Amino acid sequence: MAVIACVGGGLVGTAWAALFANAGHTVRIYDQDRNRLETAGLTAIKNALDALSELSANGAAGGGLERVTVAPTLAEAVAGAWYVQESVREDLAIKKVVAKEIADAVSADCVIASSTSALPGSTFLSDVPNPERALVAHPVNPPSHVPLVELCGTGLTSPETMDTTHSFLTEIGMMPVVLKREIDGFLLNRLQYTMVAEAMHLVGEGYCEPEDIDRVVSEGLALRWAFIGPFMTAHLNASAGFQGFVDQLGPMMRKMGEAARTDYPWTAEDAARIHERLVAVQPVETIPDAQEQRNANILRLRAIKQPTH
Amino acid sequence: MAVIACVGGGLVGTAWAALFANAGHTVRIYDQDRNRLETAGLTAIKNALDALSELSANGAAGGGLERVTVAPTLAEAVAGAWYVQESVREDLAIKKVVAKEIADAVSADCVIASSTSALPGSTFLSDVPNPERALVAHPVNPPSHVPLVELCGTGLTSPETMDTTHSFLTEIGMMPVVLKREIDGFLLNRLQYTMVAEAMHLVGEGYCEPEDIDRVVSEGLALRWAFIGPFMTAHLNASAGFQGFVDQLGPMMRKMGEAARTDYPWTAEDAARIHERLVAVQPVETIPDAQEQRNANILRLRAIKQPTH
Repeated sequence: MAVIACVGGGLVGTAWAALFANAGHTVRIYDQDRNRLETAGLTAIKNALDALSELSANGAAGGGLERVTVAPTLAEAVAGAWYVQESVREDLAIKKVVAKEIADAVSADCVIASSTSALPGSTFLSDVPNPERALVAHPVNPPSHVPLVELCGTGLTSPETMDTTHSFLTEIGMMPVVLKREIDGFLLNRLQYTMVAEAMHLVGEGYCEPEDIDRVVSEGLALRWAFIGPFMTAHLNASAGFQGFVDQLGPMMRKMGEAARTDYPWTAEDAARIHERLVAVQPVETIPDAQEQRNANILRLRAIKQPTH
Repeated sequence: MAVIACVGGGLVGTAWAALFANAGHTVRIYDQDRNRLETAGLTAIKNALDALSELSANGAAGGGLERVTVAPTLAEAVAGAWYVQESVREDLAIKKVVAKEIADAVSADCVIASSTSALPGSTFLSDVPNPERALVAHPVNPPSHVPLVELCGTGLTSPETMDTTHSFLTEIGMMPVVLKREIDGFLLNRLQYTMVAEAMHLVGEGYCEPEDIDRVVSEGLALRWAFIGPFMTAHLNASAGFQGFVDQLGPMMRKMGEAARTDYPWTAEDAARIHERLVAVQPVETIPDAQEQRNANILRLRAIKQPTH
């Protein structure tokens, strides 16, 4: 199996390391805080490997931690690597330095993928040597549990790099989508925060409470969306499919879009009030437990989804 | 148990009838197409009762069809009813006539709830006798499987009517949210079609294919949303909770909302292309099977959610 390098050993980087090791690859991981990586980081990798083993249908033994090595320097982590996943802090200046450092240390055909969620790849991946092998591979939190990953080239990324990365990530169990060109927030955060923006409007203008928004999604919309996306949902809501849906309800769809107030100027007070309602249900000190519960639920949901794929 | 009347025996009306009968109530249902109601309608009620029995944790026997009677006239359906659920066609003129006919035939304190998804209740429930007992109770398709229901008064609806309906629907296993005042599309369709509008923009402008949107939701966002809504998702994505999330990512949230193009002027060609991609996966003639699969999946998801409630 190939050597894969992870640069950055926070929540995202360690989840990636587990995904690669779980698939049988040799993983070298580097973080500038080596001490944290060797303690909390390796524990996080172990926990993610356990979760991934739970996911495998045949209940195969987990393991894989023995394939992960903490590298003392970035250069040693990436030396001889076939694929590098960069997951350092979302700071353009840092990303630029790290991208260059990686590109200088690897062979010309090593894929360099960045986990960035907020920065367009072209702003820090275009002026490295051989920019055709660099792209964004943006995962969802936590990547060890959520299979979606968004691939986005920089404009200089080669089709081969896109294809290689797509195949590689699919092989390790991820489900990639490919953006055809760059857009701020890629797809996932645009969809998510467009909906949240309208939710801020509905709560801010006093139509409902924050928990009503959450209930509408978790006990309504997402019971369908957990299996079929919004377009397929519409397709199945009319006997003539999506076309029939649009013929009948297109004007309503259009009206809802036009009436949305996604530019709603929500205030610090609006956000504070939402926080207050959320902590009434989930106090801040219980968040780590709630994260674990969320992760366990994601695995249970994926388990019931598998037979239909 | 009380007598509950269902006026309108299409997909939504028959699902309501099953919900009421499943909870032990005596149900009278009326549809102007009595023949269809006595054939396809009763079959739909039976199927929904079977699904509801599958949902009950203790695997209790389904049954309940013996509590459902097809009434020959609207007046006979609602006579002596404690609660009427109206689910006739989404046509303002028809809704007005039917609402008045119901209100004239029942006692002054009988709750009159409309299943309308698109018409504000004030446009057809305000000029009936005793309008304080009339409201919208908008369910999700299919109501027998999806517990969310949106309650919305007309401005004349009394707080007692809102409370009574909320308690009653909760008792039969639904999960209501209450809108504090009317807004087009209520909460669910506003959130849904605001997101779909941005999806139409992303596909229309060539950033991705329709199936990428569906994958982003069903393999990404909805794995979390099936258990926790979008506000709680943000709350769990920062160690300091929602406030911490906003402090760190508020500018990104705001930027995504401002950049959304929910007024995107998608064309008939855009819709046709999306339809084409959807039928490649799910041909129109397979839609009934896919609906059954969707419904079965919803029940399986609800089953794994129960322990955490």
